Amino acid sequence: MTKPEPLIRPGATIGILGGGQLGRMLAMAAARLGLTCHVFAPEADSPAFAVSRRHSIARYGDEAALAAFADCVDVVTYEFENVPAATAAFLDARCAVRPGPAILAATQDRLAEKRFLAGLGLPTAWFAPVDDIGALERAVAQLGRPSILKTRRMGYDGKGQANLRDGSDLAQAFASLGAQPSILEGLVHFEREISVVAARGMDGAFAAYDVCENRHENHVLAQTLVPARIDPATAAAAIGMARKITDALDYVGVIAVEMFVSLEDAPGSGSLQEVLRVNEIAPRVHNSGHWTLDGAVTSQFEQHVRAICGWPLGVTRRHGAIVMDNLLGDDAARWRDILEEDGACLHLYGKSGARPGRKMGHVTRVVREI
Amino acid sequence: MTKPEPLIRPGATIGILGGGQLGRMLAMAAARLGLTCHVFAPEADSPAFAVSRRHSIARYGDEAALAAFADCVDVVTYEFENVPAATAAFLDARCAVRPGPAILAATQDRLAEKRFLAGLGLPTAWFAPVDDIGALERAVAQLGRPSILKTRRMGYDGKGQANLRDGSDLAQAFASLGAQPSILEGLVHFEREISVVAARGMDGAFAAYDVCENRHENHVLAQTLVPARIDPATAAAAIGMARKITDALDYVGVIAVEMFVSLEDAPGSGSLQEVLRVNEIAPRVHNSGHWTLDGAVTSQFEQHVRAICGWPLGVTRRHGAIVMDNLLGDDAARWRDILEEDGACLHLYGKSGARPGRKMGHVTRVVREI
Repeated sequence: MTKPEPLIRPGATIGILGGGQLGRMLAMAAARLGLTCHVFAPEADSPAFAVSRRHSIARYGDEAALAAFADCVDVVTYEFENVPAATAAFLDARCAVRPGPAILAATQDRLAEKRFLAGLGLPTAWFAPVDDIGALERAVAQLGRPSILKTRRMGYDGKGQANLRDGSDLAQAFASLGAQPSILEGLVHFEREISVVAARGMDGAFAAYDVCENRHENHVLAQTLVPARIDPATAAAAIGMARKITDALDYVGVIAVEMFVSLEDAPGSGSLQEVLRVNEIAPRVHNSGHWTLDGAVTSQFEQHVRAICGWPLGVTRRHGAIVMDNLLGDDAARWRDILEEDGACLHLYGKSGARPGRKMGHVTRVVREI
Repeated sequence: MTKPEPLIRPGATIGILGGGQLGRMLAMAAARLGLTCHVFAPEADSPAFAVSRRHSIARYGDEAALAAFADCVDVVTYEFENVPAATAAFLDARCAVRPGPAILAATQDRLAEKRFLAGLGLPTAWFAPVDDIGALERAVAQLGRPSILKTRRMGYDGKGQANLRDGSDLAQAFASLGAQPSILEGLVHFEREISVVAARGMDGAFAAYDVCENRHENHVLAQTLVPARIDPATAAAAIGMARKITDALDYVGVIAVEMFVSLEDAPGSGSLQEVLRVNEIAPRVHNSGHWTLDGAVTSQFEQHVRAICGWPLGVTRRHGAIVMDNLLGDDAARWRDILEEDGACLHLYGKSGARPGRKMGHVTRVVREI
């Protein structure tokens, strides 16, 4: 028995799992297109509730709440990849979930993600599974140090990671992450971090924004520049990799593929060349695509809505060169100075507590060149 | 006793009187800046409710509901100029109302508006007050025909108007409008209709968008082109008139000033020159400024929010030349074709019934030239 594919028209209701700033900006993009939003999130003060027609405050494991939610939406999407598999499966049995639950399975587990990428022939950092301290010792003996131990699940913004340097105590590092199924990754000496923000439609159409260059502080995105300062051939290769990933997953929606760019010896020539390695896949709208709200014809949020509704993708043209800065913690206190600045586009997420490092907003500047 | 001026910061609550598409787009602009919105409107299915944190469904004369509304907002604004004077006065006694109630008094009554403009030395169509049939006969004898009889109050989108041509029965025309206080206006043989969408801040700062050229069908705006195809000197004069109006009113917020451009003999030269006449003032965001959402650095909705919060005005630069088409009635059924079109930015207002002529959405195209 296959579920009927819903025909989604303006007036339909989009269900969004997760009520943070990504859900908030998705909800506004959906409203702009005449859609109604219903946000499902456990936190009573979720920023997305303020711009949505309806919301449910419930845990992701609350099947009664999920069933009621599924009954009144036409399609479900999510703003974060750590939707519990049981939640996704429960909803998938009742309504359209896009991107599909299989995508979550492929991206929630760092080891499965790396193996999926390797299976596509895409370059990644070296990696090895680590299920116990013996496996960790063998992997370190093989990969060397420095390297990074990461939990397979629930890692984001640098959480669930331990750097292994000369002298690091392996048992202590493994214990610090909860002695859970993990993965050891070789440290990539990268020149730049980039991301490809792209979308794939129900019909297989693919549209990428120009490659973004990202700078992180304390593992949190601080700044995105577009276009990334890389060779055009490297940019084209990065977009090609993102396309290969979305095709392999039969993906629907916006995706972000984060990659490292290293400078390595070109064999035989003695010169340096840019080498790409895929770091991770975010099956959702992404912080490095926030600039599209002010700097592109179609925002990533509208693009995601178009894709999950089975509508045509929009064009991804930029209005200029882009500098997007996240407003982390107290950065948002500078709101008035930003409003004074010619051409700075301010976004605040309506969060009450500005704890250090928390994403409170962002500011996009469309400039002539970077 | 003067009310204290509220200091409005992100996190504050904006109260919006009126829940149509203008309120909806205002609410989204406010949310983008980290503000919370509370929409007050009598219709249970108001489009603005779907993107606002809170709403009140109540008549504008419901003082208990208005008092509760005033208690939980930091500043009140409105999406339409026909807010009853008693409503505005009731709220003004309790909280900041911007633009102020005096602005409503000046713009709700066509006769008061014309006299205000004449007092500033700004050109308008010829006009005369009509309180009874005798006054109408005298005014027609003076102004001639064709001319237009309009009610002094509650006219918009061509409502409350009767054209007087040769042979029109004056008593019948006056009765058809309810035999109420009215105004007779001379018919302006205009070449183009334009509007100046501009904003004035709490500090007196003024910022105008480039002049818009508007085409109406059945008295409803059908299309806006920017920049208007008029002489630069005419455009500058039009913006100067809008500035004079906002300064005279000590205005705060976005305003739209609609004008006619006629071609008339330049005295002494034998050539034709563009002559401006102010038609009407809309003390609010305006349909002819919807293009700013996709075609300008700062949208008119964000600009209005900035102004009423006492924040700096944003820059009004365009991304290109603009063609904005309203989607009236069944026009919105073309949504999928519009989504297919390269660079067309679609907005739908989430209204359920597409009765003929109803504003269901709009589409903005940013082009190289018009």
